[in-house]
Amino acid sequence: MKKFHQPGVKPYLITKSLNPENQETPIQFINNNIVDGNLFYRRNHFSYPHFTSSFYFLPIHGFVHTPRTFSLQEIYSLPSRTIKVVLECSGDKRDFFEPKAFGEQWEKGAISQGIWKGVSLRTLLQYTGVIDAAKELVFEGYDYGERPDSDQMVNFSRSLPIEKALEPDTIIAYEYNNQPIPFKHGFPLRLIVPGWYAMASVKWIKSITVIDKEFKGPYQTVDYVYYPNKEDDSGKFPVTTINVNSTIQYPLNRQLLTTGLYHIKGIAWTGKGSIDKVEISLDDGHTWETCQLTSTSEKYSWVSWNYQWEVLKKGEYTIKSKATDSHANVQPSKPFWNRKGYGYNAVDHIKVKVE
Amino acid sequence: MKKFHQPGVKPYLITKSLNPENQETPIQFINNNIVDGNLFYRRNHFSYPHFTSSFYFLPIHGFVHTPRTFSLQEIYSLPSRTIKVVLECSGDKRDFFEPKAFGEQWEKGAISQGIWKGVSLRTLLQYTGVIDAAKELVFEGYDYGERPDSDQMVNFSRSLPIEKALEPDTIIAYEYNNQPIPFKHGFPLRLIVPGWYAMASVKWIKSITVIDKEFKGPYQTVDYVYYPNKEDDSGKFPVTTINVNSTIQYPLNRQLLTTGLYHIKGIAWTGKGSIDKVEISLDDGHTWETCQLTSTSEKYSWVSWNYQWEVLKKGEYTIKSKATDSHANVQPSKPFWNRKGYGYNAVDHIKVKVE
Repeated sequence: MKKFHQPGVKPYLITKSLNPENQETPIQFINNNIVDGNLFYRRNHFSYPHFTSSFYFLPIHGFVHTPRTFSLQEIYSLPSRTIKVVLECSGDKRDFFEPKAFGEQWEKGAISQGIWKGVSLRTLLQYTGVIDAAKELVFEGYDYGERPDSDQMVNFSRSLPIEKALEPDTIIAYEYNNQPIPFKHGFPLRLIVPGWYAMASVKWIKSITVIDKEFKGPYQTVDYVYYPNKEDDSGKFPVTTINVNSTIQYPLNRQLLTTGLYHIKGIAWTGKGSIDKVEISLDDGHTWETCQLTSTSEKYSWVSWNYQWEVLKKGEYTIKSKATDSHANVQPSKPFWNRKGYGYNAVDHIKVKVE
Repeated sequence: MKKFHQPGVKPYLITKSLNPENQETPIQFINNNIVDGNLFYRRNHFSYPHFTSSFYFLPIHGFVHTPRTFSLQEIYSLPSRTIKVVLECSGDKRDFFEPKAFGEQWEKGAISQGIWKGVSLRTLLQYTGVIDAAKELVFEGYDYGERPDSDQMVNFSRSLPIEKALEPDTIIAYEYNNQPIPFKHGFPLRLIVPGWYAMASVKWIKSITVIDKEFKGPYQTVDYVYYPNKEDDSGKFPVTTINVNSTIQYPLNRQLLTTGLYHIKGIAWTGKGSIDKVEISLDDGHTWETCQLTSTSEKYSWVSWNYQWEVLKKGEYTIKSKATDSHANVQPSKPFWNRKGYGYNAVDHIKVKVE
């Protein structure tokens, strides 16, 4: 006799485009502070790269005393560093800008968090040394393709100022959640730059070049730049640190509820310091109350929060969440509009109806 | 030597809620006129039901001459009917109402299409006969749960007027795309009511009861009812036939393009008759041109359409699509707002930027 069991019900990635593959994490349905590799959001500029892992070596050259090429075995054998890090696409929540910004219409899920293990970049640089004139490090990925503003193929490349590159938590990672990094997330080596939006965390690192000037690649000076004006480039400045932010996970926007007791829950994060406070409003921002943080807020990682809401009166409620970090940065009520739609971090809000 | 291959890149269902499971089809990424079972949108009112397939029988009783219980073997052995049918949730596109309607925030993917095979309901009714006083047939599903407006457990039940029930294309289906119906979509038997929104196509049929009055179950008289007014129930009327509709699949909303030649593509469908015409506007509705239908439009199924667009001038473009069916129903420019957000069928529109 065959019995029907309750079939597995699970969330999936949310497809934004397939070529290149851009899919977001179903963040409302992530109950864990560690996102499984297969639900980690995927954000690519190009097709996935082809290269041969057995020939994989990491060269560090340019303005160094001793150019060097590291094998994976060498990298694995060096002292390691393991950190829990939020990676957030700088286009996360782009869909919520008004007026709308063009580009991938990320909702709230271009963000994931997990445990990255690797070697501090500064450890590798101790082997090569760095010439005094060095100013930036350029990280080239194996991924490449066409850009509308170029008639040549371009690799995805980004730079870091030398001070940021030398921070002990800037690592060349080889594991995610105790496993080799999934190919789609940068196997075998991915740069992890905690606290910066994730365009900085270059996947499939092909080479590291130390340079004595500012890097001018298109992913440094054309994209990933805040343009505050719609029609011209005045006032532009680069995208770097993650803005203080929060997301309500439950209830869902436009959910129908009945009177009773609810646990409103969500996450909050920042690129600088840690989260000090998350406040919630149940009356569209007129009054605010403090949420409970369900764990200690740590540098680089999101903190989960919740709030017990007893709702006795039927009607419509606008629920807002607002995080404050240890540098006193607070989510603004309105986002900072910019043409390419980066860094959205306005107070989160949903609306529910109690029937 | 290990080589990296381009890893499989594929779309997934888009999670709207997990309990009950509501996930929509990634309709922008469906290139086929037949949706695979695992990308068919899932819309449930309750948890998935438990029942024992080896004890499965379908009773037809009530206002009939000879009440009867059919085994699956009997049903499989009767003359079959195979039809390509659009199933669309009446809440499809609810997310686009302004003011917003509460409930599951379906975007454009609460719709799927495929090949259903089964026996005409009228064939089964020839075995039982129907008493003259019969007015409606009630289809009860195995799925049940709580409702806020009831202190008893309720099964999902819906009725059809006897005339609709007797149409030859109203079938008791047992196959989808030449396979047994997937459990999540109603195995072993699902009512298929072509041309009606999919709440009528009851899954996991437990029983069919012929009644001599109008059925008053909550999924007939509370939900799946158009309420044109926000504050009171005046002017209400039931949700039945699918409205004429169309969806632009490519380009994506807010996509960045370069100048060049594009194939704009999409689908169009209606509950009554077939699609006569799909028009497209590239200038926010000022002028309209006729699209090419890529197949003959058939009753009950969507038709794919495309339009070759050569864009030479940079700028922002609002693209709209508008379908007309063989009963001269045309998509309106504004949706018919109703409190529970059913039957959205305004002209579809997206905006792209050509750089």
